[in-house]
Amino acid sequence: MVMVVAYLGGGFRGFAAQPGQRTVAGALTGALERHLRHAVDLTCAGRTDAGVHAWGQVVSFDARADAVPAAMARAVNRALRPAVVARAAGVAPPVFDARRSATGRRYLYTVVNRPVPDPFTAATAWQVASPLDVRAMQLACDPLYGEHDFASFCRRGPGSRVRRVRHAEWTTLAGGLLRFEIEASSFCQQMVRSIVGTMVEVGAGRRKAGSMAGILAAGDRSAAGAPAPPHGLCLWEVSYPAGSGVPEPADTFEGSGVAFQ
Amino acid sequence: MVMVVAYLGGGFRGFAAQPGQRTVAGALTGALERHLRHAVDLTCAGRTDAGVHAWGQVVSFDARADAVPAAMARAVNRALRPAVVARAAGVAPPVFDARRSATGRRYLYTVVNRPVPDPFTAATAWQVASPLDVRAMQLACDPLYGEHDFASFCRRGPGSRVRRVRHAEWTTLAGGLLRFEIEASSFCQQMVRSIVGTMVEVGAGRRKAGSMAGILAAGDRSAAGAPAPPHGLCLWEVSYPAGSGVPEPADTFEGSGVAFQ
Repeated sequence: MVMVVAYLGGGFRGFAAQPGQRTVAGALTGALERHLRHAVDLTCAGRTDAGVHAWGQVVSFDARADAVPAAMARAVNRALRPAVVARAAGVAPPVFDARRSATGRRYLYTVVNRPVPDPFTAATAWQVASPLDVRAMQLACDPLYGEHDFASFCRRGPGSRVRRVRHAEWTTLAGGLLRFEIEASSFCQQMVRSIVGTMVEVGAGRRKAGSMAGILAAGDRSAAGAPAPPHGLCLWEVSYPAGSGVPEPADTFEGSGVAFQ
Repeated sequence: MVMVVAYLGGGFRGFAAQPGQRTVAGALTGALERHLRHAVDLTCAGRTDAGVHAWGQVVSFDARADAVPAAMARAVNRALRPAVVARAAGVAPPVFDARRSATGRRYLYTVVNRPVPDPFTAATAWQVASPLDVRAMQLACDPLYGEHDFASFCRRGPGSRVRRVRHAEWTTLAGGLLRFEIEASSFCQQMVRSIVGTMVEVGAGRRKAGSMAGILAAGDRSAAGAPAPPHGLCLWEVSYPAGSGVPEPADTFEGSGVAFQ
């Protein structure tokens, strides 16, 4: 089975199940197990950290042969809405694995660049109270494109930090909202938040846009800025090869695009 | 003193102070009294019900002569952000009264018309899971314009329910979001929510758009539909005559318009 899941990260200690903690995987597994009446072992496309949101998280798991995807989605939504929502569910081929089958992940990070805080964006955007130079932040995106070792932007630990970034862009929205979109094959831990934290230092004039290439080349976590807070980050979309069986969510009656509000 | 205040209504039992309840007025009064070190008696432009939000609520109160408006706003924001935010503060002439001096109020109501719930709009929009005919809902706006007795759309009680509606309009936004905007001299209790609840019945095909004039003329609460839930409603803006001393919030560094997100 495969399910596309949205959640607000604020109430959870991240995605991955942890004993004694309220996690997205724990909540989802519980709702699915009550519905299916057998143990469920979830695999996800992106293990989001505590406080990080998702619009298009993808999870896969085995279910009994007579399980009906739409009924599973309704059971999840009855139990967990509105904090966690199953946007779509389907039957995946046996070889499908939400993590290993994924070919790309797209994250959005939202900054609200206003002098005064705003109750309506406080849960999903990072308020930066000094004016930011978005053009400088955009220039700082260029060195990220392509395959690099992102050790400067990732938590230390075992394993390669080589990743391929396909897209990195800042967009100015209405009302002082700035949106950073980044797409890569995959991401290592804290990578998007560390990139955003460093770029906001560029926007605030505390680093030069031209310093980004050097920070990347340093391969050293201390070369980059502190990670931006988790509540501005959202796992937006995960891509798979055609025919993977991941269902397309029908979020609107018109089938039009869905805005991240 | 006069202050422009935004808040998320979800955590409060409405605006008006009530003993033993967490209310917006109670929270604001507490923060102001701790800062000013004297008793504060708030007047507001619109007494929003439990669960209703505000972006442009206006409050007035007396403060000691040496009180600094910007310092008061900062004290409120330190104590109450992000649930309640002072967007601007200023000195008002002694005759100013946030309620009696107001010449108009504008409310927004947001419906999210999608088959599947959405965590990101759940706190500020009413999800309607069956498709709505927005053109029919727009037609139902026409009879509201002008001066009428709105008894059909208001809670029973003493006092006139005659109000003047200057503007009433539905707008379709991206991603299945529908926005209702209504402006009037003032509103009686549950008026916007009852109008929206009735109009959504029109949009769902359970009432005809042409029935709106008859519901209004009936002058009977039972003629209209049930009120829409409070969490979709937001007191957006209050208008005053020029020179009233109400400060203009500077929400963005560019001074551009602010989007309700």
